[in-house]
Amino acid sequence: MTTTFAWQSTGNSTALSKVTIERRDLRDDDIAVQVDFCGVCHSDLHALHGLTGKPTNGLVPGHEFTGTVTATGPAVTGFAVGDKVAVGTVVDSCGECAMCRIGQENFCYQGPITTYGGTDRIDGTTTLGAYSRSYVVRSKFAYPLPAGLDPAAAAPLMCAGITMWEPMRAAGVGPGSRVAVAGLGGLGHLGVKLAVALGAEVTVLSRTADKAANARELGAAGLVLTTDESQMKQGFGRFDLILDTIAAQHDFSPLLRLLTLQGTLSILGAPLETSVRIMDLTFGRKNLTSSGTGGTRHTAELLAFAAEHAITADIELLPSARVEEALTRLEKGDVRYRFVLDMSDLDPR
Amino acid sequence: MTTTFAWQSTGNSTALSKVTIERRDLRDDDIAVQVDFCGVCHSDLHALHGLTGKPTNGLVPGHEFTGTVTATGPAVTGFAVGDKVAVGTVVDSCGECAMCRIGQENFCYQGPITTYGGTDRIDGTTTLGAYSRSYVVRSKFAYPLPAGLDPAAAAPLMCAGITMWEPMRAAGVGPGSRVAVAGLGGLGHLGVKLAVALGAEVTVLSRTADKAANARELGAAGLVLTTDESQMKQGFGRFDLILDTIAAQHDFSPLLRLLTLQGTLSILGAPLETSVRIMDLTFGRKNLTSSGTGGTRHTAELLAFAAEHAITADIELLPSARVEEALTRLEKGDVRYRFVLDMSDLDPR
Repeated sequence: MTTTFAWQSTGNSTALSKVTIERRDLRDDDIAVQVDFCGVCHSDLHALHGLTGKPTNGLVPGHEFTGTVTATGPAVTGFAVGDKVAVGTVVDSCGECAMCRIGQENFCYQGPITTYGGTDRIDGTTTLGAYSRSYVVRSKFAYPLPAGLDPAAAAPLMCAGITMWEPMRAAGVGPGSRVAVAGLGGLGHLGVKLAVALGAEVTVLSRTADKAANARELGAAGLVLTTDESQMKQGFGRFDLILDTIAAQHDFSPLLRLLTLQGTLSILGAPLETSVRIMDLTFGRKNLTSSGTGGTRHTAELLAFAAEHAITADIELLPSARVEEALTRLEKGDVRYRFVLDMSDLDPR
Repeated sequence: MTTTFAWQSTGNSTALSKVTIERRDLRDDDIAVQVDFCGVCHSDLHALHGLTGKPTNGLVPGHEFTGTVTATGPAVTGFAVGDKVAVGTVVDSCGECAMCRIGQENFCYQGPITTYGGTDRIDGTTTLGAYSRSYVVRSKFAYPLPAGLDPAAAAPLMCAGITMWEPMRAAGVGPGSRVAVAGLGGLGHLGVKLAVALGAEVTVLSRTADKAANARELGAAGLVLTTDESQMKQGFGRFDLILDTIAAQHDFSPLLRLLTLQGTLSILGAPLETSVRIMDLTFGRKNLTSSGTGGTRHTAELLAFAAEHAITADIELLPSARVEEALTRLEKGDVRYRFVLDMSDLDPR
C-alpha cells in the first residue's frame, strides 16, 4: 500500500476534507499515476448529493484526469515511468461480455467498474476517485496523453468529451450533418467543438440569447433561442441529431420537433426519469436515445482526433484546495466551461 | 355527387348503422373505386371510442382496402376502369413540404389527410372511410394491386403491413438482422412474414406460450415468453430491432433489455403516453422510436415486395353486415390475424 492525499466527503455536502487515503500495491498490469489535473464533473455533484444511490460518506470524486506514470506493474507494456496519461470514468470491466469484446466497456454486462464509488473486481474495495494526488489503475484503462494537448485542458475530454463523442460517432456525424447542442456547459462546449471538427453544421440551443457570441467562438453556425417561439418554429425539422446536455428535468417535446425524419435526440445530461409522449416520436419516426461516457475503443479514437484537431476544453483552473468553490459555482452553472483542479497543491511543502 | 352504402357510427360505440353517404364528383386527378374488401384495424376501434379526439358521430371507419376502378378523372394516368387497386390511410397531403417531396406523405408537415376523419384540402368536408361500397380518391394515393395478390388478404397490407414495413426499412433489416416482434396480431403477424422475407432471424415476444406454433408457421425462428424470467434473461442483448405492436399500455423496460448496442425499440401499437426511464436507454445507447403507416414511396415498395414474396395477411373474411361482430371480437383480441370485410353485401339485391 501507498498513501496519498485526497479530498473526501464526510456526508451529503460539497464540503470536502483533505485526508490521507491508501492506494493498492501494483498488480501485474497496474500503473501508478501522479494525478496532475482532474476535471470537476456535474456527476460529481450528483454523487456528493447522494443522487446515485450510493453512500456519500467517504466518497472521493474525480473521474476525468491526466497525470504522470510513477510506477508500472511487471506485465505492463506501452507505459513507462514519466509518461503522460489520461484516465476516464471506467477503470475495469469483465473483459468477456459482448460489450467488452468490442471496446464498449462502459456498457459491460457485468457493470463497468467506475473510477470512484465502484467495487474493485479483485479485492472488493470501493474505488476512490482522482480528487487526489495519485491513482492506481489497470493499464488497459489508461491512455497515453497525446503530445500537444495541454494536460489540464485535456482532462475533461475523458468524461465530458467522450460522452459527446460516442453518440456523435454512433450517429455518423460528418460533413453535411446538421447537429444541435442543447446547453452550453462542460459537455456542450466540447460537443460543439467536436461536431464542428467532424465537419457538421452546428447550432447551439439555449435559453440565453447572450450565449450566441460564445457559440460562434466555439465554431457553431448559430444559436436557436429555445424561449423564442418564432425561432423554434424556424428550427422545425432542421436537425439530424440533437445532443441534449441539459442536467435539469425538461420537456423533450419542443426539441423533438426540431428533428428531421429519423433524427435522433440523445439525452446526455441525465435527467433520470422523464415522461415521453410516444406521439412526439411517431410523426417523423424520431429516435430518442441516451448514452454515457465511453469505452476504450472510442476513447482512444477521441484522443487521437482531439490531438489532430487541437481540441481541449475551455477551463478554469483552480488549486485543488478550492474544490468546494468549484462545486458550488458549478451547481449554479457559473463556469466557462469546465473547472479543472490542479492537484499539485496536495504535495507536502 | 354519387351515393353509396356505408357503415356509420351514431356515437361512441361499435354498433354501426347501414346508411347512404355521398361521394364527391371526380376531380381531374381522382379515381372512383368500388370497395371490394376493407380490413378492420385496431385504430378503427380507437376512433369509434373517441380516443383520437375527433367526433365519433357520423364516423365511417376503414382505411386499408382494395377494390376496382369504376371511373377516372380526365387527368388520371396509370389507372383505367376495371383495374384492381389498393388504398391505405393517407388520401392527400400538401405535396410541397420536405416530407411530401421524399414520399413520406404520412409525415406531411401540414398533416396528411386521413382516409376517414380527415378534412379534405379542397372542399373542407370530413373524409368518410371504406366501410363503404365506394370511395373517391386522388389517384396519387391509389396503388395498382399487383396481380397474384389475393384482393381480400392484401387489404391489410395497406395499414398493418406498411406500419411494419417502414420501420424495418428505416432500420435496414436484412440478412443477419435479429428482429423481434412483440404481439402477434394484425400488425405482428405481417411483421414476422415481412422480416423473414427480408432475410432476418425473427423471434416473437409473447405472454402466451401457445403462440409458439403460430410463430413458427409464420416463419419465426422461435418465441420468447415475456412472462418467463429465465427466457427473458436468455434474451438479454439479443435483438437489433424490436417491433412492438402491443396496443395496451405496457412497461418498455423489459423489452429494452433485450436490445443489443444501439438497438431500436419501435413502438407501433400506439399507447399514447408512456413514461420512459432514460437510464434504460443509456446503458447500450438504445433507441426508442415510433412510426405510423407509410408514404407513397414505401407503400409502392411494399406492394412490389409482397407480390415478389407472395405475402398477404392471414385473414378472417366476413360480410360487411357482420362488422359489429368483427369489432367486438377484435377488441377481445379474438382474431387470427385480421378481419377483412367483404363489401359486396352492400350492393342492392
